[in-house]
Amino acid sequence: MNYRIISSILGRILAIEAGLLLAPLAVAALYGEPVLPFVWTILLCLAGAGLLLALGRKHTGSLRPREGFVSVALSWLVISLFGALPFVFSGAIPNYISALFEIISGFTTTGASVLPEVEVVPKGVLFWRSFSHFVGGMGVLVFMMAILPTDDEHSMHLLRAEVPGPVKGKLVPKMRDTARVLYVIYCVMTAVEVVLLLAGGLGLFDALTTAFGTAGTGGFGVRNASIGAYNSAYVDVVVGVFMMLFGVNFNLYYIVLVKRSLKGLKSQELGLYLLVIAAATVTIALNILNLYDGFFQALRYAFFQVSSIITTTGFATADFNVWPSYSRALLVLLMLMGACAGSTGGGTKVARLVILGKSVWAEIKKLLFPRAVNRVTLDGERLEAGAIHNTMIFYMLYTVIALGAFLLLSLEGFDLETTFTSVVSCLSNIGPGLGLVGPTGNFAIWSGASKLVLSLCMLLGRLEIFPVITLFAAGVWGRKN
Amino acid sequence: MNYRIISSILGRILAIEAGLLLAPLAVAALYGEPVLPFVWTILLCLAGAGLLLALGRKHTGSLRPREGFVSVALSWLVISLFGALPFVFSGAIPNYISALFEIISGFTTTGASVLPEVEVVPKGVLFWRSFSHFVGGMGVLVFMMAILPTDDEHSMHLLRAEVPGPVKGKLVPKMRDTARVLYVIYCVMTAVEVVLLLAGGLGLFDALTTAFGTAGTGGFGVRNASIGAYNSAYVDVVVGVFMMLFGVNFNLYYIVLVKRSLKGLKSQELGLYLLVIAAATVTIALNILNLYDGFFQALRYAFFQVSSIITTTGFATADFNVWPSYSRALLVLLMLMGACAGSTGGGTKVARLVILGKSVWAEIKKLLFPRAVNRVTLDGERLEAGAIHNTMIFYMLYTVIALGAFLLLSLEGFDLETTFTSVVSCLSNIGPGLGLVGPTGNFAIWSGASKLVLSLCMLLGRLEIFPVITLFAAGVWGRKN
Repeated sequence: MNYRIISSILGRILAIEAGLLLAPLAVAALYGEPVLPFVWTILLCLAGAGLLLALGRKHTGSLRPREGFVSVALSWLVISLFGALPFVFSGAIPNYISALFEIISGFTTTGASVLPEVEVVPKGVLFWRSFSHFVGGMGVLVFMMAILPTDDEHSMHLLRAEVPGPVKGKLVPKMRDTARVLYVIYCVMTAVEVVLLLAGGLGLFDALTTAFGTAGTGGFGVRNASIGAYNSAYVDVVVGVFMMLFGVNFNLYYIVLVKRSLKGLKSQELGLYLLVIAAATVTIALNILNLYDGFFQALRYAFFQVSSIITTTGFATADFNVWPSYSRALLVLLMLMGACAGSTGGGTKVARLVILGKSVWAEIKKLLFPRAVNRVTLDGERLEAGAIHNTMIFYMLYTVIALGAFLLLSLEGFDLETTFTSVVSCLSNIGPGLGLVGPTGNFAIWSGASKLVLSLCMLLGRLEIFPVITLFAAGVWGRKN
Repeated sequence: MNYRIISSILGRILAIEAGLLLAPLAVAALYGEPVLPFVWTILLCLAGAGLLLALGRKHTGSLRPREGFVSVALSWLVISLFGALPFVFSGAIPNYISALFEIISGFTTTGASVLPEVEVVPKGVLFWRSFSHFVGGMGVLVFMMAILPTDDEHSMHLLRAEVPGPVKGKLVPKMRDTARVLYVIYCVMTAVEVVLLLAGGLGLFDALTTAFGTAGTGGFGVRNASIGAYNSAYVDVVVGVFMMLFGVNFNLYYIVLVKRSLKGLKSQELGLYLLVIAAATVTIALNILNLYDGFFQALRYAFFQVSSIITTTGFATADFNVWPSYSRALLVLLMLMGACAGSTGGGTKVARLVILGKSVWAEIKKLLFPRAVNRVTLDGERLEAGAIHNTMIFYMLYTVIALGAFLLLSLEGFDLETTFTSVVSCLSNIGPGLGLVGPTGNFAIWSGASKLVLSLCMLLGRLEIFPVITLFAAGVWGRKN
């Protein structure tokens, strides 16, 4: 294990975090709130960064796959350990474990909160909380690559570990250019949403934080009633549509916007994603018809909640916890599926479902007609056995982790619906679940130990399991080759 | 598709069912109950058998894999369609759909019932209900092979489709001998249990029906309070241990008893199976300690329920629906796992879990150390990529079917715990679930349409999915080669 190179990466990440903390510091200053919580955190970040950069100076050798994994997992851990401090220093969340849960929920764009009321929290802290979604959405290491010089071979292993989805590396050959293009698209889309929300009558603070929550598909709101607080069909539609857009594979935007080709739109993943949203919206609208004032109101609430859950954002305009069983069951299934690969959304990704469905179908045909030739293709290209195998391994790991965490959390004695959806919501980076952790509840019910289990689930979900597991694999540490 | 050969197999199966129905007919006669429900059913079976055998006479050609699958799936459907008639004719379950659910639950050794009270049902009908577990446990086609002359190439495809588990065909080379050996072991073990239960003070009727329910890992009881009605620690231990024994791969008994070698006991599947039973029993006993009178009472109830659920039998001596969350969560996980491959138990099988765990682990190692050589072995033998791939496909299909049925059933509006555990319980051939279908509830709550969905789940679970899917694969029918 090349410790120096890892140390150097972690040092740079902490220095970047210190820079990012200037934003909430400015917000706090503007609103006349105490700025010391941020000043102290920035100083601690800089001290940590200095130490790590000193340890990592004059690093030699290359960054191999496992060092890429370890660097990414540790980076996310380190920014969270420091990022939790403003919550503690400001007194908004005095308990450090709870603060850690909150910021991991932020960076992983989960949006699960321990705060029963957010409107009493200082604006600077709320801004940091929402800003963490924006930072985590596209990935902190991708951001590092976009702004700092890194060599391309290194970048590749980091990018592979941080960008979600089963198929990678199809963007521009230069990794640093890729990172920049991704961030430009991301920022422009966020800016457009801010403008549209301002046009809808939201204040700048609400517009910015809501756009951050949408862009990262995070879901932290600055109102107790989430997006429902604005009580505006216009805002619902803007946020609903933008959640959907941020749940699309960014490769497609790149192909359409930069390469000026409409070929990207013929993606089978995109097709299934839109089909599922449409089908879920219409059937849920029919299922909840008698709770709302006519079909169009039902459609409005169904679409927002479906878009919020499938993209793993977690904003709410309705308490879907009181919806009928079919709607709740379907939302749980959408939680398991998640958004498109290469988007800011979480879950197991639509692309994996496409690969899975096609492989299972090919297998059944092979069983019935052993002599027929069956190839599994995605968007016309043949999928290799390795990609299919990895997809299945991912599902298996996801299931095993979900069931293991479910069993651990069940020790606390809450009902199984609350327990199971807490795990799925964290593992898929959604935010709310059902039962006690529904849209009107929060995660403060869980003990410190369970919060740590759920925090681990959020990290496992965001980094798609493998990088985090690497940290626990004893054989990785101290191995020379 | 070779229709004649399928028709001939179905004819023979129906003739066998007519023969099997003589047993409940005799019981009804002994207890002075009406015998006409059985007489009519036998006559209808014989008429159906005559018709099918006439259609299938002079069949030529061989039985290919897909004809094996179709034959097995249709055989199970046909015996159920006729087997449901005594419930209707006797008036015990006047609705045919409900009666069909009950007998499919019997043959698939699920044990899920629509009857709120069983003690009011005629003895002959109760006997038929429990006897269906015994018949279905080892497989109706295996029984056919054991008693009727069939050629070996045909038998292989039927056996492969009916005997559960990922690794098959390791028994004696002659399939008919295999079928006979399996049935002899099965009958001897059942007889031993009957003797032990008689020694415990049970009457012959209760001892026989309880042993049938145990042997097939079915779970239909003849008392309203299931095995709890006998209120005897001795009976609990006998039934608990025998459930565990019937959940072991019968290959192991064959190796130990016939080949007189202890090598079979070194099976990794057996090791994990026993380990899980021990760990689950002890941790559940600790979890339910304050509900019972001391640790040994808690252990007694924990062991019985664990053994009943992991083997997918479904007998109960306690209402585990009121146990704390951890115990309920763990029982749901045991439902998903099930018993050993090649046993009479259902579920996804311990052997698949072993294969899965080892493949995932090998995959993680490969990812971290690409140059290292990793082989997946089971009991010292290397597993081929095909076997691993099939195991994963099976899990994927199991998950997709479970979630699909969950969504369909959620339309009825029951709570999600009841809905989900109804599906898992039927798909894993267990019997009780949680919530409204817990040990004190029953499946009469579901509408006819949902009962058909659950019946399909039971068949999919018992036949391990592929044969049943074959029936729905349009390409199978009418295809020449």
